[in-house]
Amino acid sequence: MADMTETMGPSTLREERSKTQFDVEAMKLVWAGSAAHKKVADKMKVLVANDPVFEKSSRPRLDRKSLYKNSLRKAAHAWKLIQDNHLTEEEASSLRHYIDEPSYNDLHWGMFIPAIKGQATEEQQKKWLPQAYKMSIIGCYAQTELGHGSNVQGLETQAVFDPSTDEFVLNSPTLTSTKWWPGGLGKASTHCVTYARLITDGKDYGIHGLSSLFVSPFELAFIAPIRSLDDHSPLPGITVGDIGVKFGNGGYNTMDNGFLRFDHVRIPRDNMLMKLASVTREGKYVKSGQPKQIGYGAMVYVRTTIVVDASNMLSRAVTIATRYSAVRRQFGTEKGKPETQVIEYATQQSRLFPLIASTYAFRFVGEWMNSLYADVLARIEANDFSTLPEVHACTSGLKSITTSITADGIEECRKLCGGHGYACNSGLPELYAAYVPACTYEGDNTILLFQVARFLMKALSQVGSGKKPTGTAAYLGNIQKLATENCKITQGREWLSYDVIIEAFQARAARLAGACALKLSKAPNAEAAFEEFATDLAEAARAHCQLIIVEKFVEKMRSQIPGRGVAEILEVLCYVYALDLVRINAADFLSTGYLTSKQISLAKDQLRSCFKKIRPNAVALVDAFDHTDHYLSSILGRYDGDVYPNLYKDAQEEPLNDSVVTEGYAAYIRPVLKNQLRQSKL
Amino acid sequence: MADMTETMGPSTLREERSKTQFDVEAMKLVWAGSAAHKKVADKMKVLVANDPVFEKSSRPRLDRKSLYKNSLRKAAHAWKLIQDNHLTEEEASSLRHYIDEPSYNDLHWGMFIPAIKGQATEEQQKKWLPQAYKMSIIGCYAQTELGHGSNVQGLETQAVFDPSTDEFVLNSPTLTSTKWWPGGLGKASTHCVTYARLITDGKDYGIHGLSSLFVSPFELAFIAPIRSLDDHSPLPGITVGDIGVKFGNGGYNTMDNGFLRFDHVRIPRDNMLMKLASVTREGKYVKSGQPKQIGYGAMVYVRTTIVVDASNMLSRAVTIATRYSAVRRQFGTEKGKPETQVIEYATQQSRLFPLIASTYAFRFVGEWMNSLYADVLARIEANDFSTLPEVHACTSGLKSITTSITADGIEECRKLCGGHGYACNSGLPELYAAYVPACTYEGDNTILLFQVARFLMKALSQVGSGKKPTGTAAYLGNIQKLATENCKITQGREWLSYDVIIEAFQARAARLAGACALKLSKAPNAEAAFEEFATDLAEAARAHCQLIIVEKFVEKMRSQIPGRGVAEILEVLCYVYALDLVRINAADFLSTGYLTSKQISLAKDQLRSCFKKIRPNAVALVDAFDHTDHYLSSILGRYDGDVYPNLYKDAQEEPLNDSVVTEGYAAYIRPVLKNQLRQSKL
Repeated sequence: MADMTETMGPSTLREERSKTQFDVEAMKLVWAGSAAHKKVADKMKVLVANDPVFEKSSRPRLDRKSLYKNSLRKAAHAWKLIQDNHLTEEEASSLRHYIDEPSYNDLHWGMFIPAIKGQATEEQQKKWLPQAYKMSIIGCYAQTELGHGSNVQGLETQAVFDPSTDEFVLNSPTLTSTKWWPGGLGKASTHCVTYARLITDGKDYGIHGLSSLFVSPFELAFIAPIRSLDDHSPLPGITVGDIGVKFGNGGYNTMDNGFLRFDHVRIPRDNMLMKLASVTREGKYVKSGQPKQIGYGAMVYVRTTIVVDASNMLSRAVTIATRYSAVRRQFGTEKGKPETQVIEYATQQSRLFPLIASTYAFRFVGEWMNSLYADVLARIEANDFSTLPEVHACTSGLKSITTSITADGIEECRKLCGGHGYACNSGLPELYAAYVPACTYEGDNTILLFQVARFLMKALSQVGSGKKPTGTAAYLGNIQKLATENCKITQGREWLSYDVIIEAFQARAARLAGACALKLSKAPNAEAAFEEFATDLAEAARAHCQLIIVEKFVEKMRSQIPGRGVAEILEVLCYVYALDLVRINAADFLSTGYLTSKQISLAKDQLRSCFKKIRPNAVALVDAFDHTDHYLSSILGRYDGDVYPNLYKDAQEEPLNDSVVTEGYAAYIRPVLKNQLRQSKL
Repeated sequence: MADMTETMGPSTLREERSKTQFDVEAMKLVWAGSAAHKKVADKMKVLVANDPVFEKSSRPRLDRKSLYKNSLRKAAHAWKLIQDNHLTEEEASSLRHYIDEPSYNDLHWGMFIPAIKGQATEEQQKKWLPQAYKMSIIGCYAQTELGHGSNVQGLETQAVFDPSTDEFVLNSPTLTSTKWWPGGLGKASTHCVTYARLITDGKDYGIHGLSSLFVSPFELAFIAPIRSLDDHSPLPGITVGDIGVKFGNGGYNTMDNGFLRFDHVRIPRDNMLMKLASVTREGKYVKSGQPKQIGYGAMVYVRTTIVVDASNMLSRAVTIATRYSAVRRQFGTEKGKPETQVIEYATQQSRLFPLIASTYAFRFVGEWMNSLYADVLARIEANDFSTLPEVHACTSGLKSITTSITADGIEECRKLCGGHGYACNSGLPELYAAYVPACTYEGDNTILLFQVARFLMKALSQVGSGKKPTGTAAYLGNIQKLATENCKITQGREWLSYDVIIEAFQARAARLAGACALKLSKAPNAEAAFEEFATDLAEAARAHCQLIIVEKFVEKMRSQIPGRGVAEILEVLCYVYALDLVRINAADFLSTGYLTSKQISLAKDQLRSCFKKIRPNAVALVDAFDHTDHYLSSILGRYDGDVYPNLYKDAQEEPLNDSVVTEGYAAYIRPVLKNQLRQSKL
């Protein structure tokens, strides 16, 4: 079977890498954010990749039980490594990240502990956190119910205070009040933080949250023990289990998303987390006097994590698609020469390169969100809540935009790999299945855009009454000019200017928001009109968020970026990101009158020239993400490009190939071939 | 657990159905196409739904081996039913359709037999077809190779004629020449139709196909026995197996997509299918004299099937999303009243209703393609090949457009179901995973659009030299007028006119194609320019295909449509389909100058009013697809709307819930909780 094509992948990628025009090592540092962060990541990714327990390529072949059991094994092994090696909190978190398998750990460390930190009094924290930190309890976060996801106010679980025993009685009064979806709840957790309507003193206090949408940050959370610490059996009054199989073979099926019903389960009054509000021994509901805004920090933190994660997940998909597009050859044979690399085709480039650009764009906006988070914490500490509405809007929008583009981008990368992308060993089906819930959790992406839109409408009405918007909305203060002065460029080259780009995105966003505000102002019923023009409002919100991402990319470009050729190629990516958005959203720019169709056409020309500059650097740009083969878990995306022999090798591992003659032959194939179905029992 | 919400689903759907403004039974007939077809479908869908062997809701829980074995069982049982009940060919095909599980049957009946019919001489057909018809052999269709999918000309498998024995020697000379992906090949088939480079008389004749893209219809196909008819073991020189797990839990994993290598396997010369060309006893390659265009019929047939199937798959997804959007309530509580049905929200409608409209649109264009197929057959019979280029372009484009929209539409429907859409019991993850290959097989959707674009460019150049285009391209003959006269409407109501709509779509398509032609004409190298402007050309092709779908919907509307209110509501759907395309493609209409932004805005207003007319009929419009609960296999999409109790019930079936304390507890959870990891072996 020896032939040239077998070695073609490796030699092709070597040749690709020799064309690189920038310092890849320097770019790796830009991507990682800091040398310190890179050092931790490098150590952890290698630790995981070299440990056979963390093998994951066989996941799609396992049935649910084996998959779950294997996931428990990994979680335990990870905890052992963390203890044995005395890993820091950052290292432990990085380790879990590279294990790359949804498990109860995610919820224990990512939701249970933060909920206690955010909502428990100091005394309560002293009680619960040490147990949680050493994992002598395993916790999860039980918010959503069978009948209620987005609308937290509609949750039905009850916590009725019984002053006679100083306890809360947790109860699931209806079928739809069954807690549904919480990760780690199904089979692993011993405790949960749960949300319930507080009923005391003859009154239903409902569920209090920062907005109608999110409990987190929250009031009225309770810690409920659900499984025995002796033998792990469910405690009296608790009905709990796994909700069943989810999208994808592996994907989130390593996670025990669960259901939970309380049948008059009693917990001590002190299990209510009382940082923001408490119930007294007598059953009086008392606010603590802490401003509820202190919870905003957690919200910004979670969303920052989600945006950084989006850039990371998209980086995996584009790595696979870029490398395989270089390896794969199709059509265009010159006599005696190998066929053309798929990455040479203009359509492949026009679909792939903007996704590479988006990956970097999301990374940089995530980096900026990290600094925003620090700013928010400092302000809250100083009781300055003035920036919170703007921060809430911008982080809602960025979560929505980046997760949607990432989910769609992963599927696009799969399609860019042709038929082989459909096989699990491409790594892409599982990446999609495991990623796409990000579009739904922590706020449905459509609903989040409306939060942005509401903020924009309010900001504009305040501009009307003389108030200056700040932060990412500052440009709205300039709406008069933005709404009237159109783009002046006449030459394609003029598009390659950060000022031109930013002004275009500002003008588009301001005009779309302005048009919505005008429509709403004319309507007799504002709320009905908001509903009526929902599509336009979502469009305006999207434009606002894209502007933020473009601005933050440009800000990054205006900072010092060391390394041979690094700033130069990032500049090209920045233009690709922005100009591709101009192309996609041409209708906005045209309908608002800001751009002419000639100017759009010039933008497209520039975009094509940018693609030519990306082309020789494409493989190096994804190498800079520095993913291990273990982490990618993709034959198509192998660093060495040795795709075809490994596809062949992997097929031999398929359980159906355990026997040469298939298991069902005697019972179900032979009777067909031999016309003996009538006699056979099926 | 008794409560109002448990019965809310059923009563809500009953109320929805009571609002219906048209005769649903009459609509069922419109959807089915004919009473005769409906009768067969009704009989078969009930037969399947009532037979426990065809149970499919547990599929996502099965491991690959069980899944495959179960699929073999269904295939055998289906064949038994077909024989026992003396089903007609139409009934048998309908039966397989409703079993709704990819299996070797699909390829045996859908590709192996048609390939023999299309390419074998009458004598050869007499030899092979009777065996195939009684399934004493099982056949598949081995075209694609590990290194070659789209580019058929690049296939590497060889068939070398050996005159000394009057045999062909089939050989896989390289690793990349391994046949890869053929369904039914992995474990089931005894024979395959395979494609190979014919080498005889000292010459490599390569692979001949109708175009560079598709072998089918074809020359140089060979029938190769691959497994023993005695014991099913692979024949000498054959290496064969399954390629492994694919996207989704169930999905296409019921199918044994396979790999196949030939090591100098000898087959009689007569196993070459010789309708179009043959090799003589002496090894001379001889064309039969049959025009190769006779194969076009098969191509049109396959694509018609794919388009009809697209409408069908999309109809399943929109049924689920529509019913669950009516059942699901979220937000907007008036005190004491249930929350608002999700289907009331404008954004939900704006995403869902155009998909309902697309479903009907694809059905009607599929119906038209059936008549086109008959026309093509008649013309080919009469040696009239004049319409073939136009037919080839239009069927390529329709396959591309409808499958892409359907795949994306299924995912959109899943997202419209919120979090629960992500669970396999929604039916949507598996529907997507099983459907999405349609975007790749029978021609990659991107590549197909370029075929349309090439045709359009050629047609326009012929218009320049005075030739009148025909069929779906006839409007291009009118390009002068279409390119200069802009839309004149000033009132929103004017949009509700078939003439206005069609003219708009014609003008857009003609202008986009014209702009591409102009760019190409200025370029020094036409082929390089085609590559350079690929994105614009794809856009022009898409516009052409959307025009066809709009035109065929209008043609349907202009025919007699019986039934109370049926024509009226279909008219609304027709406008929804067209106006939503205007909205989505506003950039095209604006940049070509055909519409002003004011006119676009009027179109959006009309679209919103149309949604209001759809709203009370939405559930009935999906009821008209008449899917059984078995076929939908979706708890969210149940006809009775009894969603939540059944979600709860289904969770109890999850294998992880077999034991209250999870299997890995002792080994992997207890040691964590008890801090005993150091002693434990993981």
